[in-house]
Amino acid sequence: MENFTPRQKLWLEADGKLVMSDYRVRLLELIAESGSLAHAAGELGLSYRRAWGKVKEIEGNLGIPLVQSEVGGAGGGHTTLSEEGRAFVRAYRRFQENMATELERVFHEELGSLRSSQGKPAIGGR
Amino acid sequence: MENFTPRQKLWLEADGKLVMSDYRVRLLELIAESGSLAHAAGELGLSYRRAWGKVKEIEGNLGIPLVQSEVGGAGGGHTTLSEEGRAFVRAYRRFQENMATELERVFHEELGSLRSSQGKPAIGGR
Repeated sequence: MENFTPRQKLWLEADGKLVMSDYRVRLLELIAESGSLAHAAGELGLSYRRAWGKVKEIEGNLGIPLVQSEVGGAGGGHTTLSEEGRAFVRAYRRFQENMATELERVFHEELGSLRSSQGKPAIGGR
Repeated sequence: MENFTPRQKLWLEADGKLVMSDYRVRLLELIAESGSLAHAAGELGLSYRRAWGKVKEIEGNLGIPLVQSEVGGAGGGHTTLSEEGRAFVRAYRRFQENMATELERVFHEELGSLRSSQGKPAIGGR
């Protein structure tokens, strides 16, 4: 028997241009978790330079300063999210989580008979 | 000033396999509108054979007989959606429409300050 699963992909655009996606928010989260842009870049298979460019692009698109850098020191450079960056990531995660909840609810409401069927679905049989 | 727009893509999977998407439901709608698989195929730039194969694949995946064909007659063959096919397309459209409504609502709720900002967004400033 088939088990149907609803899926969704979410992103933000500004003037038709991608400004936030799962991938981009993951980059920001990795920076927040590790305190290191180099580590975050490595996790995503990006060069440091490309990850830095991506962060600056996101900052420019959102109009929010997202990261704070401390150069040098014992362990080398250190990159953290700014307070506004952390608030944005939290808000975006809530957006994703609430939409995931709505996806399940609306799927059950409109297409639930697909899932609960045995053999031939009961759609249209109500 | 930037004007942020939330976007979403929806689809259904069964056992990790794509079973319904915007594209597939569009194919079914074009068949319903035109009464012709050849016309629907042409609109999507598909060969008749490929469109027919796609419809049969969707039927198999969903476990619903979607189309009814009448062969021959004055105007050649004629393909319509079955009652269950029409009911499925209507249900899927409601699923898409309700999710579009939720997208706007949840975006405003969680990320609305991005949109309403002048210059620097007020996220984190609440």
